[in-house]
Amino acid sequence: MDTPLAPSLDALLDPLLDPLACKGYPLGAPALRRSAIGCQGWRVLAGDLPLPLALIRRDALQHNLGWMQRLADDAGIGLAPHGKTTMAPALFRAQLDAGAWGITFANVQQLAVGVAAGVRRALIANQVLQAGELGALAALLQAHPGLRAPFLVDSTAQLALIEQAAAPLAFEVLVELGLPGGRTGVRDDTQALALARRLHASPAVRLAGVEAYEGLWATGDDAGDAALVNALMQRLHTLAAACEAEGLFEVDQPIVSAGGSAVFDLVARGLKPPGSRWQPLLRSGCYVTHDDGAYRRYAQVVNRRLGCADANGLRAALEVWAVVQSCPEPGLAILNAGKRDVSTDWGLPVPVKWAPAGELRPREAPAGWTIDKLNDQHAYLRPGDAAVSPQVGDRVALGISHPCTTFDKWRWMPVVDEDYAVVDAITTNF
Amino acid sequence: MDTPLAPSLDALLDPLLDPLACKGYPLGAPALRRSAIGCQGWRVLAGDLPLPLALIRRDALQHNLGWMQRLADDAGIGLAPHGKTTMAPALFRAQLDAGAWGITFANVQQLAVGVAAGVRRALIANQVLQAGELGALAALLQAHPGLRAPFLVDSTAQLALIEQAAAPLAFEVLVELGLPGGRTGVRDDTQALALARRLHASPAVRLAGVEAYEGLWATGDDAGDAALVNALMQRLHTLAAACEAEGLFEVDQPIVSAGGSAVFDLVARGLKPPGSRWQPLLRSGCYVTHDDGAYRRYAQVVNRRLGCADANGLRAALEVWAVVQSCPEPGLAILNAGKRDVSTDWGLPVPVKWAPAGELRPREAPAGWTIDKLNDQHAYLRPGDAAVSPQVGDRVALGISHPCTTFDKWRWMPVVDEDYAVVDAITTNF
Repeated sequence: MDTPLAPSLDALLDPLLDPLACKGYPLGAPALRRSAIGCQGWRVLAGDLPLPLALIRRDALQHNLGWMQRLADDAGIGLAPHGKTTMAPALFRAQLDAGAWGITFANVQQLAVGVAAGVRRALIANQVLQAGELGALAALLQAHPGLRAPFLVDSTAQLALIEQAAAPLAFEVLVELGLPGGRTGVRDDTQALALARRLHASPAVRLAGVEAYEGLWATGDDAGDAALVNALMQRLHTLAAACEAEGLFEVDQPIVSAGGSAVFDLVARGLKPPGSRWQPLLRSGCYVTHDDGAYRRYAQVVNRRLGCADANGLRAALEVWAVVQSCPEPGLAILNAGKRDVSTDWGLPVPVKWAPAGELRPREAPAGWTIDKLNDQHAYLRPGDAAVSPQVGDRVALGISHPCTTFDKWRWMPVVDEDYAVVDAITTNF
Repeated sequence: MDTPLAPSLDALLDPLLDPLACKGYPLGAPALRRSAIGCQGWRVLAGDLPLPLALIRRDALQHNLGWMQRLADDAGIGLAPHGKTTMAPALFRAQLDAGAWGITFANVQQLAVGVAAGVRRALIANQVLQAGELGALAALLQAHPGLRAPFLVDSTAQLALIEQAAAPLAFEVLVELGLPGGRTGVRDDTQALALARRLHASPAVRLAGVEAYEGLWATGDDAGDAALVNALMQRLHTLAAACEAEGLFEVDQPIVSAGGSAVFDLVARGLKPPGSRWQPLLRSGCYVTHDDGAYRRYAQVVNRRLGCADANGLRAALEVWAVVQSCPEPGLAILNAGKRDVSTDWGLPVPVKWAPAGELRPREAPAGWTIDKLNDQHAYLRPGDAAVSPQVGDRVALGISHPCTTFDKWRWMPVVDEDYAVVDAITTNF
């Protein structure tokens, strides 16, 4: 039965796409189900889809799905990649199919999307406290026996609001540890243990584990990052041990979770507390498409620590293709992709590929080409000292920095092979 | 008949919304048509909708629609507000109902959305040159007799691509003038006239006017902005006069267009060339919701020039409400709205309203509260020296800076009255 939070799987995983709802969709094509897009024979470089267009390279995506799962498997921990990055039901499925323990979300609406897509183990790596969200979470849990979706608590004020909501069941919760000067999370370990006792004592919740987030402090400096992660993991383990000693956990296998997308290898090897009872969960989300900017730089350090050649590490799978619409003065080419199409919040995009007008195979973008500014609908490409400059009508692929804020600008993305033929598609639910 | 680029008006203007497709939609509510949302009795401050939530204040919106149209009417020019700001079919209709000449778009996909919403006069304030886009534009023009949608040309390279596309009709085009160091547009006036001659001579296009964009250079400094606009208007007029003198225009009423959202009053009063034949078109788009940031600062200067009290000028209609999820250390409150929910590309949001937990009426946010950082899903509120600090569970409204990049983060927004009761809704087609 379809209910507001439980539509048919088809509607979510295989929605109907059309050119008015989906920028980048061929303007003359009929509305098609997502699953039908891969067999249309569309070729990006033949001009079958209007640019700008965000796309995902299949081979890099598949590589990343396997690479990160192996890293988690090798560390003996579970992977619960953050779904907020893509909010793409088809990618949630791909992550689960690759072996992920479950999917992480930022709020109940995101969780509802995941559950509709088949997710049955989730983390809400955030405080939940609005009565409407708590009620909807309870409804999801009741509608899906076996569904797990613990969320974070970091204050008695939040607990009071949970108790006030008087949900018909006790929610699984994790105590969040935080760092001074940071975001959410209890700063003081003694207070964290006191909160754990309060949670244990409350009939509104069941204490299911402990959680922290190191990502905001990662710098890419080996020694500093290792010290950061080690200290935070030690705090998590100490809190977990104290909760264990007092019998505060109310689940068979308590969860211990951390891990953004920057220093996930350090988290992976340090996450599991001594003892075999734990379910360690790594939440890295950006690995799935990776990027050509901030996370590429972090990954180079990760690869070095892992003894992994960069060519064998995570690969950038997400590109935004644009067309050169104007070369109005020497040293400047204007692309028709802008802040509405590509992330700019954590570094500007970089030209990575180039296909002169009419050419069906991409070349590497000449070294020296850079993007130095974006407006809403335009990017400023500077060819610099490169031997060649782009011409009006040429196509340029922008590598992005920060997958999250590119994903949320697109309601669909085609998945392409190495010749940029469209072989599949994903849709997003932001 | 429904075709890919001409769906039923209902599907576009009155789509079905549901909690999985639309963050901020009540999690337990059934799927509803847009037109049904205003009569559900939902109240934002009663917690009927999950936060974060972007909303539009009806009274401010209505005020802005009338205010800007009067400014254009008083100047004797047409208003073709840029639709890229909102991409909201219902707002396009409201702008047309208020008296707008037409709507401006950034590309053919956006135009197709507008045409489906009933727009019949449009500008594409951008270069069009992809064969697929040109073909789709031709199809739209053929399917809708009387539809006008001139686009910009700034190079013979672009003209060559248009000619190569061999569309079944001649497109209306405007010569774009540009400024040195700027974006698109012909830098040199002699070259612009030469391009106009080439366009006149080409069977692929019909020269329909001239265009420029001053917005990138506006500073808020009266004298500087006036000099900028006057010089650019003079260049437009000179080019227009030269084209007139040579009989290059191929339409009855050539278009002259300029105007972003920063110094639109200066453009409005200087846009129309001498003579009565012209159709001057002002393209300002952000006025429709205005903001509490960059455009608020520009508007204060505009108001001073117009002799308009700020209270009678444009009003901020767009707010993003969030809940305080954690107060983890003194001087810090974490809100559950982040870069996925609110613009950060042109200044950070500012707390403008505050509703303590349980209160049904908003207060003004205390002076001194600021947002100094955002992550993907979080904002850092600093109460500073204010007498009161927000508590966990309190609701805070963020005023935004730059409407465009907040609109594109939301697939719908409720429209509310001054008590934050939901009276209507808009949807977006990014």
